[in-house]
Amino acid sequence: MTGRDGGAELNPIDPSPVVILVRPQLAENIGAVARAMGNGGLFHLRLVAPRDGWPQERAWRLASGAHRILDALTVHETVADAVADLHRVFATCPRPRHIIKPMLTARGAAAEIHAIGNRGLNCGILFGPERAGLDNDDIAEADSLIRYDLNPDFMSLNLAQAVMIMAYEWYVARAPDAPVKTLQTNKTDIATKFALDHFIDHLVRECDASGFLKNPQKRTGMVRNLRHFFQRGEATTQELNTLHGIISELVRKRESGTPDA
Amino acid sequence: MTGRDGGAELNPIDPSPVVILVRPQLAENIGAVARAMGNGGLFHLRLVAPRDGWPQERAWRLASGAHRILDALTVHETVADAVADLHRVFATCPRPRHIIKPMLTARGAAAEIHAIGNRGLNCGILFGPERAGLDNDDIAEADSLIRYDLNPDFMSLNLAQAVMIMAYEWYVARAPDAPVKTLQTNKTDIATKFALDHFIDHLVRECDASGFLKNPQKRTGMVRNLRHFFQRGEATTQELNTLHGIISELVRKRESGTPDA
Repeated sequence: MTGRDGGAELNPIDPSPVVILVRPQLAENIGAVARAMGNGGLFHLRLVAPRDGWPQERAWRLASGAHRILDALTVHETVADAVADLHRVFATCPRPRHIIKPMLTARGAAAEIHAIGNRGLNCGILFGPERAGLDNDDIAEADSLIRYDLNPDFMSLNLAQAVMIMAYEWYVARAPDAPVKTLQTNKTDIATKFALDHFIDHLVRECDASGFLKNPQKRTGMVRNLRHFFQRGEATTQELNTLHGIISELVRKRESGTPDA
Repeated sequence: MTGRDGGAELNPIDPSPVVILVRPQLAENIGAVARAMGNGGLFHLRLVAPRDGWPQERAWRLASGAHRILDALTVHETVADAVADLHRVFATCPRPRHIIKPMLTARGAAAEIHAIGNRGLNCGILFGPERAGLDNDDIAEADSLIRYDLNPDFMSLNLAQAVMIMAYEWYVARAPDAPVKTLQTNKTDIATKFALDHFIDHLVRECDASGFLKNPQKRTGMVRNLRHFFQRGEATTQELNTLHGIISELVRKRESGTPDA
């Protein structure tokens, strides 16, 4: 969504899980994976038997600044070698296999990976090759499976997208943001209720003066509805000033005899 | 993760929000967005003033089978036209603006979009151009902002990744899977406790016969530990049969005088 080059800021956030790409085919996808890892605050990347060898310049071009992740990655001949120093290994596995292991959603896995990391243990997550996915021997290296909660009618998930979802869930599980918040910057102070009342008084006074509220039976309800309306949407000081100005201007025109419409 | 072509299965799941790409630059990204939408069960796509015009054959090549989404999309000259028939519009906005609107996380927005859809209202989500993101005029068309809970030190989020996260959250919020479940297929029945007891009895009987459990002070604890071990990990019927066979075979060798080791 932004074009900012963030390579310089990327640093390991530990404990963070190791992303292990098993027999990846396209260098572009490895670069896109590094970018997705950067988005989700992951840093540790390992490749098992990349099809076209390593390094590949095309990966750096697709990483959108996540160069440090690529610079620091390690290459391994086998899955067993890539997971040798880890304590827990998860395998992303979109299709049921004839195997019994705990199977987690991405969200469930993210929570468990944090819990494991908080015990000082190291986790890895296996992602299979673009076309075939992990094979049974790869999965035999894993303690648990991860299956994403996604549309079963369209399972063609890009490798970098698969890493993105896991990295995102890991990042959110770290310290989730409140689901709703209101953005306020120093340029836009929300008006106090006192300021709002002052404005509504101004408005009602001029409505009275104009005859708009001349029906006494309707006046109370109409004023209340005006108040409801202006309470909604957190008016800013600047917005109220603008509205004050509009009212004053309309009054000035009416008093000077200029037609309103 | 899989290479399955799922184009034929894609159908609208309603109520589902409309994805609106504002001034998208690369046709490849539009195709990748359609693929991500298919993964997350979204269907309705609109383009506002695509830079290179429309249609673009490259989009279909990157959609990995999500052709029906591209075939059905509509093109609009302005954001106002693209949102005209919608009731609520969200704008993805990674950076704070000098504006006051409700700001939601992707997860919070997904919950709200479902709530809105369940009231029979139509939602749209605006995604900005690859480099610059949405501008202030675009955002003025939106009721609420969405800011993803992702690493603030590396904000370079690919357009299709941005759509993927929102589509994923929408799909998960629809009917979230249990965070942990155990996969069972018809080829791997988990053994009953009766079958497990039967196996442990077999094992203990042969341990007794072999003299392995001859110390009466240790026997109780050792049998309990064996039981603990085999309780763990949900043994399957087939695994128990294999273990039965191993014990029988070891016994047969001992009885026939063949050395064990």
